[in-house]
Amino acid sequence: MLRSSRSRVLVVAIAALLTPAFVSAQQYDYERQETWQYPASLGQSPIDIQRTVATEGDMEEAQAIELRDTEAALRVVDNGHSVEVEAHGPDALIRGRHFELMQFHFHAASEHTIDGESFPLEGHFVFKAKDGRLAVVGVMYREGDPNKLAGEVLDALGDAREGEIEREDIAIMLPRDKSYHHYLGSLTTPPLTENVEWYVLDTPVTLSAAQIAGFNARYSHNNRKVQPLNERPLIHYAAH
Amino acid sequence: MLRSSRSRVLVVAIAALLTPAFVSAQQYDYERQETWQYPASLGQSPIDIQRTVATEGDMEEAQAIELRDTEAALRVVDNGHSVEVEAHGPDALIRGRHFELMQFHFHAASEHTIDGESFPLEGHFVFKAKDGRLAVVGVMYREGDPNKLAGEVLDALGDAREGEIEREDIAIMLPRDKSYHHYLGSLTTPPLTENVEWYVLDTPVTLSAAQIAGFNARYSHNNRKVQPLNERPLIHYAAH
Repeated sequence: MLRSSRSRVLVVAIAALLTPAFVSAQQYDYERQETWQYPASLGQSPIDIQRTVATEGDMEEAQAIELRDTEAALRVVDNGHSVEVEAHGPDALIRGRHFELMQFHFHAASEHTIDGESFPLEGHFVFKAKDGRLAVVGVMYREGDPNKLAGEVLDALGDAREGEIEREDIAIMLPRDKSYHHYLGSLTTPPLTENVEWYVLDTPVTLSAAQIAGFNARYSHNNRKVQPLNERPLIHYAAH
Repeated sequence: MLRSSRSRVLVVAIAALLTPAFVSAQQYDYERQETWQYPASLGQSPIDIQRTVATEGDMEEAQAIELRDTEAALRVVDNGHSVEVEAHGPDALIRGRHFELMQFHFHAASEHTIDGESFPLEGHFVFKAKDGRLAVVGVMYREGDPNKLAGEVLDALGDAREGEIEREDIAIMLPRDKSYHHYLGSLTTPPLTENVEWYVLDTPVTLSAAQIAGFNARYSHNNRKVQPLNERPLIHYAAH
């Protein structure tokens, strides 16, 4: 059992974490920097995208998302908490900046909701810039026509933990219209790192009922609950 | 005094904070999301900029820092932990993106070090993008010729807590050569938020010994210790 003094330190540390907005003069004591509290977690993902809250982006900047070199050899992995597809080669210009696609993976049901509406599946296309900045493009999937790549992903995996797709165009798992809601958030799985730019696309892509069932057979409940937006700007961009 | 069970929870929570890289299978338990650990603080500022570690930036992108509308009315405030200058109007294109200058303030001695070398003073020019992204341009000051704006900042403050400068060109407190080291870091004061792009300029600007003494008379030790770079890329850009 802990001694009382140590318990008190722990209580203070925990209390500090729970009241992140509170910054006392004492917290600027440079002689006691070690006592400074670590960053508050006010910028987490996913969120409920309330469309009426969204504002326009910065008109002085490039705003489009442009995928490039989208045909690639793909490796499909069941990583223990999601079906993940590794791709090497595809990259993107996201608001004028260059990002490389690392992987994409799926959550069921969707993690983001749009005006409270949930979707059966959400794809996260994870991009990384040279300085380490992460950008994730989120795609909602709804039931409808089958998707060729979704079928290949499920077939490649079969009953195994991994599989290969010789070559496919990943662009067919994203909508042609790249209009999006953008905000600054986090990874949605531990370590929940907060240096992530989110771009949740407006237009859903369809999968067949059987394909949705195929993903659900692997993971039917790997979606994090929505987190508060707090003071973060939510920006909408309408692609032409 | 705490009951034993609660102490144990606290110990686990603290231990989790101290071992951020460790992610167990249990942490992906979607039925117990509430137990997921909040983001590890592995991306803190300032750092020691080790020049041999730096790599080249992404050649597919704009990389320059370009200040605009640099003449402005300025308000000088002693905010209790730093001398801060508020500016409205100046903005910047930083790697092709649009940021507005919020304020600049000073730390003595410098917070960043360059190959272990500390400087008497460091200025932080804090910029904000429309999506909330922060970018801070760091400027090292060394002893030499006086700086006109530095003198005006000290004169405007006098013995008071705040003052005004009718109009001045803030560009004179930054070097003409905007070559920089870039990395992703944090605020250096609480709440130590980690969504900050850092651009520490290579070229120091001079202040007179009397000006450096003037800043030191306010705050002579408001510099946070350097933090580990961890796995973060450090990128150097040489302006032409």
